[in-house]
This record gives sequence, C-alpha cells and structure tokens, in this order.
Amino acid sequence: MTLADKTCIPCRGGVPPLTANEAAVFGREVPAWACTHGATLIERRFRFADFAAALAFVNEVGALAEEEGHHPDIAVGWGYANIAMQTHKIKGLHENDFIMAAKIDAIAAATG
Amino acid sequence: MTLADKTCIPCRGGVPPLTANEAAVFGREVPAWACTHGATLIERRFRFADFAAALAFVNEVGALAEEEGHHPDIAVGWGYANIAMQTHKIKGLHENDFIMAAKIDAIAAATG
Repeated sequence: MTLADKTCIPCRGGVPPLTANEAAVFGREVPAWACTHGATLIERRFRFADFAAALAFVNEVGALAEEEGHHPDIAVGWGYANIAMQTHKIKGLHENDFIMAAKIDAIAAATG
Repeated sequence: MTLADKTCIPCRGGVPPLTANEAAVFGREVPAWACTHGATLIERRFRFADFAAALAFVNEVGALAEEEGHHPDIAVGWGYANIAMQTHKIKGLHENDFIMAAKIDAIAAATG
C-alpha cells in the first residue's frame, strides 16, 4: 500500500515524533518534499502560471485537508504555493504528514 | 475619498517606492497593518475559528486581488491568514498597497 492509498489517523499527541531516520524512510515515497527544521517539518514549493492557478491548487489542498482532518501551513502568491506539513500536537513529523504529502503530490500531478 | 473607495492603478515600475514617512501617512487609514522590512511591505494577521474560515477569507481576498490586478503574498493555516502587500515592480510600497489593505479590512469587517 502506498502512502497515497492510506488515510490519516487522528493523532491526539502522546506519541513521539518520527526520528530523522524514520522520516527519511517515509520521505523516499515523496522525494520532492524537503525535510527541514531539524526533521520536524516537510515542505514542497509548487509553481503555477499565475495567482489564480496557485489559489485553485490551494483550494484543492484545503479540501483534502478537511477530508483528512490534517491541515498544512500554506504560503501562496503569484505563481507559487509552498505547502508545509507538521503534526502540531507532537511538534514534529508523523506518518500522517507523509500521507498528506503523497496525496498533495497526486493533486499536483492531476492538475499540473 | 477613503483608500477603500479608490482603485489600484497599474504600476509598471519606474516610480520610486513610498518613503517611510509617506507610507506612515497612508498607514493612518489602515492602522491594523504593520509596516515592516524597512518600510517595503505592509502586513496584517487575521484570526479565524478554523482552517475553513481562514481559507474562505483568503478566497475573498484572492477575488479582490484579481479585480484590482494587485496580488498579495498570503500565509494561511488553521485559524489564521497573514496578508502581506508589496508592489514587487518597485520592490517597495505604493499607494496601491494601502488601497488593497483598506479593501481587505472591509472584507474582514464584513465577514466578522
């Protein structure tokens, strides 16, 4: 089963965040995402033709976030959207973040 | 005429950005906005109940940006949207940025 086929499971905290090594294993399935901030966050920048295309993509990501109950931090403007994923309750990375990354990659591939 | 009643005029560059003092004068009409980065940018953070409310606001701001032909840089996530305005062509502030700020304040006031 690929990450994109999985569903985020509610994370109420109380579990340790992924280690950098563990994150690197999940990261192999979403190589376009950078693991940053001491392996507490993954992010990817997407490029678009203009502002409207970037915002349309952000809305698709937003709909996914509502479905999965897991919400990214997004920077969006003319021609770009930067999506950052972290599991805030554990101040670090969880498999859920990589599941979201894989599903966001799928959105980008479908709309790109 | 208030800033909110004005319309952005196309800025193709070739004019100097506002000085810090000039920006401060326009800023009096939009006091919730912070003038940062050496008076080259204005920004305001808006709070919301959840992710969906923040994204709905961003879409209203996006529609305004398309109407005015002037596009902000936006950071959005659960319960917040940060809107930054700058006139990229002059790497600084123009009256247009304050017109947008006033119109965005009006959107926020209307949506509560």
